[in-house]
This record gives sequence, C-alpha cells and structure tokens, in this order.
Amino acid sequence: MSEKLKPAARVSGRRQDVWSIINEAAAASPKQPIVNMGQGFFGYNPPKFILDAAKLALDRVECNQYSPTKGRPRLKKAISDAYAPFWGRKLDPETEITITTGANEGMLSAFMAFIEPGDEVIIFEPFFDQYISNIEMPGGKIVYVPMHPPKEGGVKTLSAAEWTIDFDELERAITPRTKMLVLNTPHNPVGKVFSKDEATRIANLCLKHQIIILSDEVYDRLFYVPFTRVATISPEVEKITLTVGSAGKNFYATGWRVGWLMGPPDLIQYVAAAHTRICYSSVSPLQEACAIGFEQADAEGFWDDQVADMKGRLARFNAVWDELGLPYSEPEGGYFVMVNLSKVQLPADYPFPPHVADRPRDFQLAWFLIQELGVAAIPPSEFYTDANAHIVADYLRFAVCKPDDVLETAKDRLRGLKKYIRQD
Amino acid sequence: MSEKLKPAARVSGRRQDVWSIINEAAAASPKQPIVNMGQGFFGYNPPKFILDAAKLALDRVECNQYSPTKGRPRLKKAISDAYAPFWGRKLDPETEITITTGANEGMLSAFMAFIEPGDEVIIFEPFFDQYISNIEMPGGKIVYVPMHPPKEGGVKTLSAAEWTIDFDELERAITPRTKMLVLNTPHNPVGKVFSKDEATRIANLCLKHQIIILSDEVYDRLFYVPFTRVATISPEVEKITLTVGSAGKNFYATGWRVGWLMGPPDLIQYVAAAHTRICYSSVSPLQEACAIGFEQADAEGFWDDQVADMKGRLARFNAVWDELGLPYSEPEGGYFVMVNLSKVQLPADYPFPPHVADRPRDFQLAWFLIQELGVAAIPPSEFYTDANAHIVADYLRFAVCKPDDVLETAKDRLRGLKKYIRQD
Repeated sequence: MSEKLKPAARVSGRRQDVWSIINEAAAASPKQPIVNMGQGFFGYNPPKFILDAAKLALDRVECNQYSPTKGRPRLKKAISDAYAPFWGRKLDPETEITITTGANEGMLSAFMAFIEPGDEVIIFEPFFDQYISNIEMPGGKIVYVPMHPPKEGGVKTLSAAEWTIDFDELERAITPRTKMLVLNTPHNPVGKVFSKDEATRIANLCLKHQIIILSDEVYDRLFYVPFTRVATISPEVEKITLTVGSAGKNFYATGWRVGWLMGPPDLIQYVAAAHTRICYSSVSPLQEACAIGFEQADAEGFWDDQVADMKGRLARFNAVWDELGLPYSEPEGGYFVMVNLSKVQLPADYPFPPHVADRPRDFQLAWFLIQELGVAAIPPSEFYTDANAHIVADYLRFAVCKPDDVLETAKDRLRGLKKYIRQD
Repeated sequence: MSEKLKPAARVSGRRQDVWSIINEAAAASPKQPIVNMGQGFFGYNPPKFILDAAKLALDRVECNQYSPTKGRPRLKKAISDAYAPFWGRKLDPETEITITTGANEGMLSAFMAFIEPGDEVIIFEPFFDQYISNIEMPGGKIVYVPMHPPKEGGVKTLSAAEWTIDFDELERAITPRTKMLVLNTPHNPVGKVFSKDEATRIANLCLKHQIIILSDEVYDRLFYVPFTRVATISPEVEKITLTVGSAGKNFYATGWRVGWLMGPPDLIQYVAAAHTRICYSSVSPLQEACAIGFEQADAEGFWDDQVADMKGRLARFNAVWDELGLPYSEPEGGYFVMVNLSKVQLPADYPFPPHVADRPRDFQLAWFLIQELGVAAIPPSEFYTDANAHIVADYLRFAVCKPDDVLETAKDRLRGLKKYIRQD
C-alpha cells in the first residue's frame, strides 16, 4: 500500500483484543458447540411487552425516520419519569437527558465533549476496554487506579464488596490536568456496588478538584445490595456528574444500541452536541420501544422480576464453584462472576499458542477451558494495564445472563475441572 | 460553571445550524401545520416486506443482541450479492464490506481511520453539513472546491448536470497534505449525477496524487440518467476508493441507522477498526431486516418501483415551478430539488429576525416561505463557506420524498408566491 494511504495512529498497531482472541479460540475448539459465557449478551429475549412495542413502532411512519438528535421526546420523558423516584425529582427531559447510540457511544460523546488533547481521565482497573479508545480518540491521557481483590480471594468466596480502591493511590492520581473520572457501579467485571461511603469519598474528591464524574451505571437495575447513584449523593455532586444508562442492559437487548446520559444542562448540552457530530441521531423505532418499556415496566413488575431472575441465575451457576471448591466474588450487582482459579493446575506441557502463552495466566486458563471443556469465559487481565495485570491472573469472568439449560451445560462441563484442582 | 468543567473546542461556540433555525422557525410560524419539505426524511414507510422482516427479527434472540462489530454476516453477504451486478464481481463480505451506524457514522469512521491532525480533505460545495464536524473531529483541515450553478440558472430550468466543477480549481486545491477527497453522487442538494467523464477525471487526479476517495453514494438507487459508481471506474481507482451506502436512503428508513462502506481490504479494515472504537457495533434487528431487504428487493421489483415512484414525485411537485415560471435544476438523481427564486421580490420592510437578516438571501427566502406560506425548505448557502455562499443565495432546497397529499398542499401554498414574482 502506498505510504500516502496509511491509516491514522488511532486505528493502527494494537495487539489483538480479548474478544477476538476468545471468539477465535471458541470457533477453533474441538468442543463444539462451545458454551459461551464470555461476552455479556443475553441468551434470551427482551420481554414481550417491549418487543410488541417495537413492532408497533415499525408501523408508524415517524418512528422509522430521523429522531431529534437529542432523542425522541417520548423516551426522554419516560426516562425522566422512571428515574424520578431515585433522583427525588423529575429531570428536565429537554435539558438534563440526552439519548445516545448505546451507552458506548454515549461515553465517547462525553469524552469528545470535554477532553482536549493532554487532558487526563482517571479510570479504575479493571476497566471496560472500550473506555480506552474512547478516551484516546479526543487525545485524552488515561491515568489508572487499580481495584484490589481481597487477599483471601484465592481461598474463600467473599463478597465483591471486598474489592477495594486505595484512596491514597486515587489522590496521587489527581493532577491539575485531571478533567474526568470514570466510575462504574454496579461494576463490570467485579460485581461490586460501590458503597455509599466509597462513592461519597470519590465524589467529594472530584468536587474538591472540579473533576467531571462519568458514572457508568448501565447495570443500574441489577443490584442485590443498596445501590448509591452517584448523582444523588448531593446537589453539588450532581452538578459535576454525568450518569450513563443503557436500554441494552435494562431491557436484555444489547443489539438495540439505545443509551442515555443524564446530568446538569451545562454538561449535557455538550454531550448532545458531540453525539450529533458522531452519529447524528439514534435508532428511532427502538427508541420508541424503549420509551414504552419504561412507561410499562413498573406495571409489568419487570424491574423486580429482573432482579429475582438474575439472582436465580447467579445462584444456579455459582453452585458449581461451591461444589468444586473454587472461590469467587459474590456479586453485589450485574451479571458477571469473577472466579478465582488459583487452585487449578494447568498441565506444564500444555501447548498454548504464542499469543496466549505470552499473556498472563488468565489467558491460558481461558484458552484451556475453551479447548478442554468447551466453555468460554473472559480473562480479566485484559482490563488491567500490563503493570497491574498480575492482580487478576488467577481470575476468569463468567457472564450468567444465559438460559438455564446453557448454565446447566456449562456446569456439567466445568465439573471436568475437578481433576486439575489442587487439593490443599 | 467552573473553568475546569468547560467543554472542548470541538463542541463549543458554533453558530446555530440550519436545521435548528428552520425547525424553530417552522414551530413558531403562524401557518400551522407547516408543510415540511426541509429535511430529507421520508413521509411514508419502508415497504411491507422489509417491515415484516424487522418484526420477525425482533422475535429472534440473536437478532436482539450485539452483532459482530463489522456487521452481521447475513447483511454483508446480501450487500455483496446486491452490488455484484455493478462491480462485476462479488465483494468479499469479510474484508471488503463493513457495516456502520448509518452512513454518517460510516463517514466519520473513515475520517477517523485515515486523518491525522493537519491532513487535508477536499470537499465540494455545496456539502452535506455533517462532513465538516466529521472531518474536524480527527483534526482534519477542510479544503473547499465550489460547484458552480449554470449561468442561466436564474432564468431557465436546466438539468442538474449543468452544475459544474472547475478542474483547475480542483487541481489547485491539492497539496502534499491532501489525504482524502469526498465526492457525493448522486449529489445532495444539487441533484447532479457526476458524468462518467467528470467522475473519471476526479478519480484520476486522486490516483495521481494517491488521495483516498470517499464516495458518498447514499442515493445510489435513485438515478434518472446513467450513474457511474466511482469504485468501478478502473481497478486502480477501486484500490483508493471507499464507497458509502445507506439503508436509510435505500429503504425509506432514515431512522434505522444502518449504513455500510465498501472498498479494498487494506482500507476497509481500518474503517472497521474506527467504527468499533466509536459505536462498537450497530443495531442488530434492523441489520437483519436490511439483509432480508436486499435479498428480496429484486424479486419484489422494489428498486425499479423506487425510481418510478420518485420520478413521479419530482414531476408532480416541480409542476408548480413550471406554473409559476420559477426555474429549477432538474434532478438527475436523489430526491432534492434546487429552485432558483431570484425572481421572488421580498418586501423591502419585511421584519426578519437578526439571525436571519445576517445570513444570505436564501435564509430570508426560507424564513419568508415558512412565515407567509407555511412551507419549509432549506437554504443551501449553509452548505457553502461564507466566501462562496453568494453562489446559491437565490436557491432553496426542497425534499420531495413526501406523500402526494403533502406535495399537493405544498403546491397550493407555493402558488401564494405568485404575487411576489417579478415579471420581466
């Protein structure tokens, strides 16, 4: 290729990402079909009342054409109503809510709205990997602060609450260039719901330094302990907080690409402006369906059912770890489980391909499970910097948002780990 | 707001865009309801076979979850099959096609893939306004080359083919930093389909200077004269050409946000990488519906019907200009008509608001039509730089992709122009 046609640095020369490593490994495994507990997509459909709403929207001319760039008025109003019990007031649908093309593009819009080249963004490890490219695209510099698993995580099952941040490490990460901090609660992949005390300490640090908090709360309907929504900590914190929501996560429809940001008008207006420049507007008929989803969810008992349902899946699946004596972090929210496999002894001469052998042990664990048992999970060291990857080298992340028969098949297969488990 | 919370330059401090000026004027007009021929959304639904496909997709679990970042295999295969008659071969669905979140995000992905700060991109005026922010986001510098309307455009109706570019102007615009050139054919708003000779001259210039051609061919099913797809000019041109397509335009569904780029693997891979970093993946159930749309369109006679249908709308609507003696550019493609209103005398003392009085005469014409007749159209000087805005100060752009009754109402109202038309 001619030198003149070469790509920009922002898209060239990255190492292979975890999703393609795992998907390719899964496709090449002798154990077909693979039970895929890797990516966090749902193995079942959105509820019927929401699918019906989408189908009705498809029959309406205006629901198939461009929506306003900031989102359909009906959806913004429905979100305002749905969040009013948590905020203690109705957000202004026109100025405090903007719709995005999924939470992912919503977060990119927030970074594009506020990050100038050289500005710093603090994120916690493990992080959602899309944060990285989303921050780098506008020229942001990422400053990492690790979450630390419980010291006894390798020997006993503990609450995900035991994953902690070191507040001294956090304070040292703040510089005059710190523009934003990303918090994710309930947390993927850890399953931690930041306690009110933790969230308040983080928020107050941001307040002191006037750092915008981007609170990724996409799992905000799936919490099994009290959940503190960051923007509700205080009116002062609300003024610096952008909250990210996701219809994909709320309604079991990761392929719908409908998300939203909520926050003060003087922040939201710029997120909306960035979104307009990125995607122009977001998918219309599914915005309409999500509006109806929010309008009817309480009457359908959907939010309560969702929590009971996911707790059931977590209990069903995690029973296999109890059975095997492998410890895990008991999730406080979301649908991921971090399992500690330090007791699993991989055969010394196992033929890992070079791109797996080169990575931390969790990549080898993931590869081994795919090849030998036919179960795919995600190695979480991908979500740490190289320097901190060792912290989670014994963990794998499993997504339990799958049908019962898939979970049972996974458990059957995972029992095959027994012979590799070191008995101390 | 604290200085530390201020937005990035890329989203702050622009003047009000044409869409919000026209929409706000329309909302405030005494002539309600306004006949909106401004924005190019369809006033009717996608055909039933495509809506039915969307509804069936909504019942399938995998159609509601994340699609592969490069798009659903079925859609990429359907596009490969659908374009094979034009390309003379089947494009490789895996390496030569990538799906994007509408053509808009597809073009942004292309700019993000190839533009480093300071790289130059040539675009023709009038341009589609989203190009500007899409090029500026990765730090590109825009170099403008105007299209010139026919000299007699104010006195007689001529083919849109009569809008021309000056090839000397184009050559002078090329520098060692020219990385990309954007061509739009069929052209919005002019309605011109670049002739084979014109397209070849532009493409050969790009070949000589190794400039990537981003050929925005979103109106590629709506041409009324022979249409040259830029990538098909020669195998050498194909190697430097990215072609942009749009399901929104092809299937009357501007709110679906499904687009695609086609091109050589060593360009497409970076577009796909950028798209992944921007939106991750695109809307799943509507990708599936578009796949089925492509698979069945020929059997349904949809493409031929679409051309006949739009030619009918153009003829129906443009009759009013013939009747009024106001000349227009006869479209060779697409669904926009550029009408020359130089003969319309606006009352000297008409109370235009400052943000309209400050702009070229076409903004005043648009405002006047909205206030006095209740018909909204778009002033095309928005799509020129300030220095060249005078070129189209007598024109307005009308979108005819509206139902017959809307077109008839518009014509009735536009007859009200008669008393303002200067009879020479």
